[in-house]
Amino acid sequence: MLSNNLDPEVAEHPDELVVYGGTGKAARDWASFDAIQRTLTDLRDDETLLVQSGKPVGVMRTSEWAPRVLIANSNLVPDWANWDEFRRLDALGLTMYGQMTAGSWIYIGTQGILQGTYETFAAVAEKRFGGTLGGTLTLTAGLGGMGGAQPLAVTLNGGVALVVECDPSRIERRLQTRYLDERADDLDDALRRAEVAVRDRRAVSIGLLGNAADVVPELLRRGAPVDIVTDQTSAHDPLAYLPADVAFDDWKPEREADPVGFTKRAQASMATHVEAMVGFADAGAEVFDYGNALRGEARAGGYGRAFDYPGFVPAYIRPLFCEGKGPFRWVALSGDPEDIHATDEAVLELFPDDDKLGRWIRAAQDRVAFQGLPSRICWLGQGERSLAGERFNEMVAGGEVEAPIVIGRDHLDCGSVASPQRETEGMLDGSDAIADWPLLNAMVNVASGATWVSIHHGGGVGMGRSIHAGQVTVADGTDLAAAKLERVLTNDPGMGVIRHVDAGYDRAVEVAEQRGVRVPMRE
Amino acid sequence: MLSNNLDPEVAEHPDELVVYGGTGKAARDWASFDAIQRTLTDLRDDETLLVQSGKPVGVMRTSEWAPRVLIANSNLVPDWANWDEFRRLDALGLTMYGQMTAGSWIYIGTQGILQGTYETFAAVAEKRFGGTLGGTLTLTAGLGGMGGAQPLAVTLNGGVALVVECDPSRIERRLQTRYLDERADDLDDALRRAEVAVRDRRAVSIGLLGNAADVVPELLRRGAPVDIVTDQTSAHDPLAYLPADVAFDDWKPEREADPVGFTKRAQASMATHVEAMVGFADAGAEVFDYGNALRGEARAGGYGRAFDYPGFVPAYIRPLFCEGKGPFRWVALSGDPEDIHATDEAVLELFPDDDKLGRWIRAAQDRVAFQGLPSRICWLGQGERSLAGERFNEMVAGGEVEAPIVIGRDHLDCGSVASPQRETEGMLDGSDAIADWPLLNAMVNVASGATWVSIHHGGGVGMGRSIHAGQVTVADGTDLAAAKLERVLTNDPGMGVIRHVDAGYDRAVEVAEQRGVRVPMRE
Ligand SMILES: NC(=O)c1ccc[n+]([C@@H]2O[C@H](COP(=O)([O-])OP(=O)(O)OC[C@H]3O[C@@H](n4cnc5c(N)ncnc54)[C@H](O)[C@@H]3O)[C@@H](O)[C@H]2O)c1
Ligand SMILES: NC(=O)c1ccc[n+]([C@@H]2O[C@H](COP(=O)([O-])OP(=O)(O)OC[C@H]3O[C@@H](n4cnc5c(N)ncnc54)[C@H](O)[C@@H]3O)[C@@H](O)[C@H]2O)c1
Repeated sequence: MLSNNLDPEVAEHPDELVVYGGTGKAARDWASFDAIQRTLTDLRDDETLLVQSGKPVGVMRTSEWAPRVLIANSNLVPDWANWDEFRRLDALGLTMYGQMTAGSWIYIGTQGILQGTYETFAAVAEKRFGGTLGGTLTLTAGLGGMGGAQPLAVTLNGGVALVVECDPSRIERRLQTRYLDERADDLDDALRRAEVAVRDRRAVSIGLLGNAADVVPELLRRGAPVDIVTDQTSAHDPLAYLPADVAFDDWKPEREADPVGFTKRAQASMATHVEAMVGFADAGAEVFDYGNALRGEARAGGYGRAFDYPGFVPAYIRPLFCEGKGPFRWVALSGDPEDIHATDEAVLELFPDDDKLGRWIRAAQDRVAFQGLPSRICWLGQGERSLAGERFNEMVAGGEVEAPIVIGRDHLDCGSVASPQRETEGMLDGSDAIADWPLLNAMVNVASGATWVSIHHGGGVGMGRSIHAGQVTVADGTDLAAAKLERVLTNDPGMGVIRHVDAGYDRAVEVAEQRGVRVPMRE
Repeated sequence: MLSNNLDPEVAEHPDELVVYGGTGKAARDWASFDAIQRTLTDLRDDETLLVQSGKPVGVMRTSEWAPRVLIANSNLVPDWANWDEFRRLDALGLTMYGQMTAGSWIYIGTQGILQGTYETFAAVAEKRFGGTLGGTLTLTAGLGGMGGAQPLAVTLNGGVALVVECDPSRIERRLQTRYLDERADDLDDALRRAEVAVRDRRAVSIGLLGNAADVVPELLRRGAPVDIVTDQTSAHDPLAYLPADVAFDDWKPEREADPVGFTKRAQASMATHVEAMVGFADAGAEVFDYGNALRGEARAGGYGRAFDYPGFVPAYIRPLFCEGKGPFRWVALSGDPEDIHATDEAVLELFPDDDKLGRWIRAAQDRVAFQGLPSRICWLGQGERSLAGERFNEMVAGGEVEAPIVIGRDHLDCGSVASPQRETEGMLDGSDAIADWPLLNAMVNVASGATWVSIHHGGGVGMGRSIHAGQVTVADGTDLAAAKLERVLTNDPGMGVIRHVDAGYDRAVEVAEQRGVRVPMRE
């Protein structure tokens, strides 16, 4: 899975060990990568490898119930948890940025974010546009590792997407993978084509080369008929956002020459960008933050109303979290796409009444090109995940698939993250900043027999802004794996249920009662 | 152990659930306490209770190898990890301050800190005064839960201690427990008595009622012949430090009426206090910070040279950490002091050549009054802790002691804490702020079969300044306990060894090689 994260089809910059999200890495450096591989090769069934920000630092004797790898990435003592200190330590070779699934070896390419983005836009359609984006125009920016999923997620929901991106190679890549339909050469051309598609209710996505901090305000000035606005430039790291007054080719040299000055210019551009988004919101558009900390940087850039539009989690995702739902995903170690197709059918058989799930699996089979090892993702909740995991383990045991299946999830899950400007924004009881939950999540996954477990800082929204945990468990067909999967895939989403029970969400209380999740204060 | 932490002999304010260190609590509130006890009573051998900042939030099925309790206390997302946000959440009933061993149920009264303080003053004696404090005068302040150990630690090393404390009841309490020898009524009286004792090389400790921010500068002005200066007022929380211009009786009402203004006044007084300590250092005294964040608050109070004297860890403790040494401790669940005496003898038999250990155990037997359940502490390193643990388990199995023995440690240990102004101050490679280590420590303890494991934020030095982990493992005489103890008590100090290997300490490399601690990058 480490190697799969760095497969050229999967990773954004495999040569630099960068998987996605700007600088999210799978290992500290190549010497660390080699030592991890070497150590795992002859690791025994009761030994555990410890990885500190992508570097293997120890091997310890534990037990057969223990994980084989424990990972802690990018964690800093809070008063020092900022980009300056992180960059200082990174330059000294003492840490790395693990993002969410990069440093925890369960990134599966853009399918993961495609599914999340599909669910989000489906929820937007549900909330505002009668269940479809047909006849609507979505304006967004960023076609990177995550953001590249936006155009396809919009068109799968029937809408028209106009996506601004300053890097021509990113536009090319999304065209090649069929995530993006067309490229426009200038703003007039893009807007004309979008308006025609909206009128004809055709689902089309258009990439526009440009800077979001120019284009979004310009579209507002022109009163363009935009229905939905969001953004997935890599704003979590100001050095990874191109300021409006810097040419694309000068990006690298300018930020290296003067990181502090560059940060200020990026923040100023983000302020302009967000001001235009708030303008669209004022004009009645559905506007939401898509989890990249753009609002925080815009505020740092001096724009006071930056938080006037909500994050996507409180707006659309939290009701799912109350049911323990989140981005369940699995990978076929055989490398054989047939194994994933077999698991697809198994999932459809397990949950025949879930229409949305059925539609997604069919669409994914049709549109998703596997990157690296074949894999699948779908959102499952408390009770459902363990059923799927146990079924997959039976399939491995019975030879219905050719090799073990690896089962994991994003750190962006119901009970595994504290991130007050994204996953835990606007919690009912005000507990947004409490970080005990992801730490309990990591510990309970270790205790439940996950195969590897990770605790990260700063993924998604940047240094200082999040703490989150991940788990991955291998279904190798043994009885021990079945027992571990049953625990992990019950307890891991269970953390989401109890986190939301504790915060006072009625739906979570209902789910806990119906599905046997124990809450001592209610006993 | 939860109840023992709140035994009136052990806790500072048991009625408020406060164990030590200002506001360090064992449980969120009494309803939480009751629910924890009720749940533990019928918890099965493959179930795990989850505790979020002192409140029980879930029970999950894990395995017999898993801990029975997992605890996360006071953790906040870094950008929100400050006293203001903590207090806001605390007032909402959403968190509590866990300190280090309060919220993790392994506080054993002042013996723990007495041992640490004894080791520290022994190291000071070694470094500057030919191995004894005989004929020297130590000036310090604070006779609280931790600070109360200072006078006895100094006299056990042969020196004279003058200890300033603003709360008369604290002075009384230390006199009663024989940790403090005498009380002086005013500064002239105190100084005269101290000078006589120094001249006669008598080991005496004197408590002086007063404010450290007045007394320390005054002694500097007078050119008092002070050899060693430190401090253990509860400076980690500005509201728990009495400003010089506030009368003791006005403390509570003033800080409640205006916490922000009170904080400023406390910081101003701490600036004055630290300025005088730097003055003593300039004059040639041995001055060190004793882990209460006084220097940081003094800097916040406007004093620029606050960090001109070192913390006690880089000055005296780090060489021990490189050997995996730290505050190993154990408790006799029988309640019978004879059980501890039997384990004392076992330890002396296991390590017959360790003179310092021998002297400590004998002094402790003579001078330490047990508080709550009988307990013992001594510093043991890599290889030693597992020997002791396995021996204790045999003693339980063979009936040499009457009931199981609980084995734990402080969070202030070799590989369990990131705290750039205390335990990880001035690391050789500059990695002071990296917090991956305590998180790996917690996870590997969960994986190794500890009975309860905790991850805390802000213990000792306050919000924003530390992340740390604890483990406690019960020796119940079974074979399973023996296997777990062998793993936990090898891996837990092993984290200290690999943390210091990674930071480039030669001694740690030696210890790893001699004692078989695996470091992948060196294989
Ligand atoms: N919502 C979620 O679930 C979620 C999940 C993961 C990550 N994220 C966040 O989304 C953001 C994007 O992630 P990614 O992996 O795609 O990052 P990435 O670095 O791969 O891509 C960002 C893209 O934005 C482009 N860009 C930068 N500045 C621009 C500007 N001013 N105008 C136009 N284009 C610009 C870059 O050229 C790049 O192609 C990150 O901040 C990430 O943390 C969100
Ligand atoms: N060095 C270590 O190993 C270590 C370990 C644990 C805790 N600590 C730190 O040591 C400090 C003391 O801990 P504690 O448990 O004794 O706290 P405590 O709150 O029990 O005691 C502090 C004492 O300081 C007194 N005090 C406050 N302001 C004063 C002033 N201006 N002048 C004189 N006396 C004053 C208080 O009356 C109180 O008795 C804390 O900050 C704690 O975090 C250090």
